[in-house]
Amino acid sequence: MKLEWIDTLAWNADGLVPAVAQDAASGEVLMLAWMNRDALRLTAQTGEAVYWSRSRKALWKKGETSGHVQKVVEIRLDCDADAVLLRVESVGGVACHTGRRRCFFNRLDEGRWVETDPVIEEPASHG
Amino acid sequence: MKLEWIDTLAWNADGLVPAVAQDAASGEVLMLAWMNRDALRLTAQTGEAVYWSRSRKALWKKGETSGHVQKVVEIRLDCDADAVLLRVESVGGVACHTGRRRCFFNRLDEGRWVETDPVIEEPASHG
Repeated sequence: MKLEWIDTLAWNADGLVPAVAQDAASGEVLMLAWMNRDALRLTAQTGEAVYWSRSRKALWKKGETSGHVQKVVEIRLDCDADAVLLRVESVGGVACHTGRRRCFFNRLDEGRWVETDPVIEEPASHG
Repeated sequence: MKLEWIDTLAWNADGLVPAVAQDAASGEVLMLAWMNRDALRLTAQTGEAVYWSRSRKALWKKGETSGHVQKVVEIRLDCDADAVLLRVESVGGVACHTGRRRCFFNRLDEGRWVETDPVIEEPASHG
């Protein structure tokens, strides 16, 4: 039997893998989220990022409410097949639920976390 | 009592967080590994990436045997404090234990994983 591409992945005990979203144009790392099989399959089929929300225990179509969809340019898998990299177009330029461009807006600076990025949009409608 | 920067993190049930290493010069996402408190503290203190090997259950100083050390330019934390981003200088230009530049060398292409990156060094001595 031929192994399907999605069976290659080394899903963890919860059936998940971490997925890193990177802005395909700027190279900026936007966020890290989680995917189960359905999320990854839907992401590949639709060309738009779908994650698994561990808090809500539900599929989470990125941008469903906010409009900040992530259009997938490329899906990559690492050497151990236990992490995914999405290179995406971040529609609206906001990937974080706080209304920032990216989720990694805290930088360690002499023993303190310093917020480096401004809020671009009010966070009410993100997700 | 003042909360120390390392106490900000939302460690998972195993006391770990995923850490993404990104080449600070090229922007390329090199790998995803895991850190516990000691690994992150040592990374911050020494300025070179230290991870936690889940398979060996031990601290793993990147490049200890191979020489492919990752010099840390910047440590970032995401909005939920459960993922770390390291921007690094990848010494020797090889981050993957397979001897490739990065671990994410498989690209999904019409339902198949295709290796896109050449092996730069024989993999014997990496880690």
